[in-house]
Amino acid sequence: MKPEVVRLGIIGLGNMGRHHVDTVLNDRVPGCELTAVCDSNPVKQSVGKGLPFYTRSSDLIRSGKVDAVLIATPHYSHTPIGIEALEAGLHVLVEKPLSVHKADCLRLLATPRQKSQVFAVMLNQRTDPYYQTIRRMVQDGELGRIHRIHWTITDWFRSQAYYDSSSWRATWEGEGGGVLLNQSVHNLDLFQWIFGMPHKVHAVCSLARYHYIEVEDEVSAIFQYYDGTTATFITSTGEAPGVNRLEVIGDMGRLVKEGNRLSFHRNQVSSSDYIRSTPEGYLTPPVEIRNIDIPDHGEQHTGIIKNFVGAILRDDKLLSPANDGIHAVELINAMILSSMHQSIVELPIQAAVYEKTLQNLIFNSHFHKTVSPYQGGFGNYLQKSST
Amino acid sequence: MKPEVVRLGIIGLGNMGRHHVDTVLNDRVPGCELTAVCDSNPVKQSVGKGLPFYTRSSDLIRSGKVDAVLIATPHYSHTPIGIEALEAGLHVLVEKPLSVHKADCLRLLATPRQKSQVFAVMLNQRTDPYYQTIRRMVQDGELGRIHRIHWTITDWFRSQAYYDSSSWRATWEGEGGGVLLNQSVHNLDLFQWIFGMPHKVHAVCSLARYHYIEVEDEVSAIFQYYDGTTATFITSTGEAPGVNRLEVIGDMGRLVKEGNRLSFHRNQVSSSDYIRSTPEGYLTPPVEIRNIDIPDHGEQHTGIIKNFVGAILRDDKLLSPANDGIHAVELINAMILSSMHQSIVELPIQAAVYEKTLQNLIFNSHFHKTVSPYQGGFGNYLQKSST
Repeated sequence: MKPEVVRLGIIGLGNMGRHHVDTVLNDRVPGCELTAVCDSNPVKQSVGKGLPFYTRSSDLIRSGKVDAVLIATPHYSHTPIGIEALEAGLHVLVEKPLSVHKADCLRLLATPRQKSQVFAVMLNQRTDPYYQTIRRMVQDGELGRIHRIHWTITDWFRSQAYYDSSSWRATWEGEGGGVLLNQSVHNLDLFQWIFGMPHKVHAVCSLARYHYIEVEDEVSAIFQYYDGTTATFITSTGEAPGVNRLEVIGDMGRLVKEGNRLSFHRNQVSSSDYIRSTPEGYLTPPVEIRNIDIPDHGEQHTGIIKNFVGAILRDDKLLSPANDGIHAVELINAMILSSMHQSIVELPIQAAVYEKTLQNLIFNSHFHKTVSPYQGGFGNYLQKSST
Repeated sequence: MKPEVVRLGIIGLGNMGRHHVDTVLNDRVPGCELTAVCDSNPVKQSVGKGLPFYTRSSDLIRSGKVDAVLIATPHYSHTPIGIEALEAGLHVLVEKPLSVHKADCLRLLATPRQKSQVFAVMLNQRTDPYYQTIRRMVQDGELGRIHRIHWTITDWFRSQAYYDSSSWRATWEGEGGGVLLNQSVHNLDLFQWIFGMPHKVHAVCSLARYHYIEVEDEVSAIFQYYDGTTATFITSTGEAPGVNRLEVIGDMGRLVKEGNRLSFHRNQVSSSDYIRSTPEGYLTPPVEIRNIDIPDHGEQHTGIIKNFVGAILRDDKLLSPANDGIHAVELINAMILSSMHQSIVELPIQAAVYEKTLQNLIFNSHFHKTVSPYQGGFGNYLQKSST
């Protein structure tokens, strides 16, 4: 029998965890009640505003006070905490990335669970109508056969103060990666959600190019698909002002999302047919320009929590099931591997090979992390999330 | 003693050669007189409108009727004809590419010549005020340190009728390459003219992706510079409608050329300083937006011929000296090598290695070229050349 309300515990009260606490406490998620919170740092108790507070995630999981947990701890702990929560029979929503690397994703996804247990991952940008529209257009064949994809997503600017705000950030041991794993995991998930997984990856990951960190803060990559489609992907936390421009070129024209504009230059004849049939050498097919109005960027994190709760209460279809979370992680792992070995990496990757690579990075690290308490705000990060 | 007029012979009366004949016959180049023309095909005699006509370039070169030649023959012949003309003491302007491969460029450039002999290459897009402005801004440091460069130049659309119009086009044996060597040689020359030569190249060159040809018609590449700057370059003759967007990101902001728009989002504080000093984690430096008005795309081919004639008559400084022509060719050769071997290629390349690779491509070719007389026009190709 379905419950009428989901009793949620939030584990990890950093930037995102605190934001999720606010979301639920402010009644923005119907059918969801926040009943417990957890953070390893006791000073975070006040975040829960008098709710039962735990410093150990195991204690929250076994408290009997929660049906579901939202895990918003540093990346590596997603796996052990997620496994424990699933084994305890709880529904689980884990912040992105699902895990730091493919092997941990596999361990987490291999945890036995009841059919009724809901397991999702916070890929909140899937709620964005811009990307939903692009996905629908691609899947419905409005662009015809896809030839080329390009995404420059460099508006993830972060300062040194951001990286210095926590001891785990931007280290191989603490965070497990940089811009790919923390920020662009969203974009790479959307990428594979819309276009599927590539066959081969080549990436140049620049480590500590803009910041005093030890992980990547700028990446340029080429993806190759089995059918010959090529894609390029560029991301950075160091450049300003950044760019967010996604181009999709198909037989039927060019779809471009840049900032809050989505436009489709639609060919009146497919370019493949035109190439074969025109007597002209240099002219392109006539186009009509469609500007597609999208009202906003969707419900984002709140939307994913609502969907998670809806799946528990009413069997709603999950927008971001945990199974989907492995793809962007594998793509990211492949990009790091490619850059480390200066070679093309074929997918699927060997999970153990990347895990070993990461262990070596941690073992060989000589990085001395600087930490200082964060004094700044959150800009429009939590509001925009995707422009 | 300097002559008062340059007697020019044009060798090769294909699309470009005929265009150059018109340019000079219509008195658009002061101080230049067309005195002879040459094409291996006797039916082209009428192009010269009664001027002395030769079917063998050697005969034109030794005719005594010319001080200078403009070589607009298929790519491979640039080298032997150029060498013969230089050895005959003539001034030489050779169409792009300087040669098909680095070894041929070296042979051509090694030809002994008098100090007074002018030797230039038709890199006409160097006359474009858009690119001249970008180059000046980069060289004057207006963008600060350059971090990232991206150029998508896919508005080189060509139909099958274009490729079928000549027997030499789009074959390894006849043309020696595809979109890189024929079209994007302009963009890659501008690239290295503005930003310098990269250190490492990785490219995915798709052969015959859009057309019935045997060479590359779509390319995605990543360039790495010694100082850590990364660049991406995408080109195609198959997609429609195409894109021409050049992004340059430096410490002082973002310069973008797209079509006929050039805009500079200028940071009021350098992004490097801001990263280090701001207490904010997510905010970027304040920017001012400058739209830079450029009246037109310059004199293009006519401008290069004028400059060539000015160098002969008045020692004007060459805008596109032949020595510069090797760089884009080497970059192109490196991109093909990288794609063939699916690996990163370091520059400089071994000239003989690429020459051997190309010989193998020719030797192993099983391509059956289709040829049919061209019935179409030239679109706005000769007018725009660079938007």
